[in-house]
Amino acid sequence: VQPLKTVPEPVTRLIDELSRLPGIGPKTASRLTFFLLRASSEQATALADALRDLKARTTFCEICFNITEASPCVVCQSEERSARVICVVEDPLDVLAIERTREFVGLYHVLHGAISPMEGIGPDDLKIRELIARVAEGSAEEIILATNPSLEGENTADFIRRKLALYPVRVTRLARGLPVGGDLEYADEVTLIRALEGRREI
Amino acid sequence: VQPLKTVPEPVTRLIDELSRLPGIGPKTASRLTFFLLRASSEQATALADALRDLKARTTFCEICFNITEASPCVVCQSEERSARVICVVEDPLDVLAIERTREFVGLYHVLHGAISPMEGIGPDDLKIRELIARVAEGSAEEIILATNPSLEGENTADFIRRKLALYPVRVTRLARGLPVGGDLEYADEVTLIRALEGRREI
Repeated sequence: VQPLKTVPEPVTRLIDELSRLPGIGPKTASRLTFFLLRASSEQATALADALRDLKARTTFCEICFNITEASPCVVCQSEERSARVICVVEDPLDVLAIERTREFVGLYHVLHGAISPMEGIGPDDLKIRELIARVAEGSAEEIILATNPSLEGENTADFIRRKLALYPVRVTRLARGLPVGGDLEYADEVTLIRALEGRREI
Repeated sequence: VQPLKTVPEPVTRLIDELSRLPGIGPKTASRLTFFLLRASSEQATALADALRDLKARTTFCEICFNITEASPCVVCQSEERSARVICVVEDPLDVLAIERTREFVGLYHVLHGAISPMEGIGPDDLKIRELIARVAEGSAEEIILATNPSLEGENTADFIRRKLALYPVRVTRLARGLPVGGDLEYADEVTLIRALEGRREI
């Protein structure tokens, strides 16, 4: 018997496209595709529309490279924000996290990742050159390097710190220590060492 | 400070839509969204198009409920296939797996899942009623219950077997035993018991 092509091309194509996403293997891609086949047309359409709008209706801010519907973004355009402090983060969601604190009144700079030789991401793949240019031309007095407290984040902060040594700006890093609400006995050693190093008089 | 809405609506909407997919939590949904933001427009569009085509260009076969571009499907329409044997499977990918053997010349019936009280899937959520009707009206002589060798698959096969007891058809189940190329010492007990039970003279 000749095996028949029992799976239509649109199905295999969606499985292929989903498999191209990071962390989605062929098995997960199949599972998602068959879920969508059985889901309502509305759900599949809503997802397709959201995908299309993601690219059609967003852009990167020409100043800070955060995602925005119109460039410059709301933060860069706001008259209530101070251009003297720039907080450098890896991702747009980091901006959201810092905004939620309601404590930061400066501007942002989104790198779009961290230096990672393992994943083939070098300084030129990030918005580091643009940050240096912003510092060179702008009125920033302090650069807060708020990259993640991970190996990649530390390396990225270190790389930028050395690049910024040429400019008359204060370069700071977010404090490391015990998370509020955390439990001392469950803290890892490195966090505990940093918490001791950074201890403050009360 | 009033926190600013720094993440545009199309971004949060895509995160929300992706989070509705099974096995995709908010963290994975964010990661995928930010990956797509940085990916080429072509990749996002290809994925959106594939999603749209999945619903627009496929349908279920009115006879066997496999996915197809046109109903009835290629298998049900083929004059080389025998209507005397119907192989009942859970998913369209199971049809593909059996077609690849090039050994099966009968027709299929796709249940679209298995009975699973845990997931709230009952017999009426599957194409079981349609299978019984097919057997009642058709010329099938043997029904091969090729549901998965899992708890849900076994329960589903058992449920269907009892329903089919009223009709003059042979009801069979795929053999259980050691997988070809497998290693006896690593076989689980249940598989080994089934392999012993099903032993054949050589």
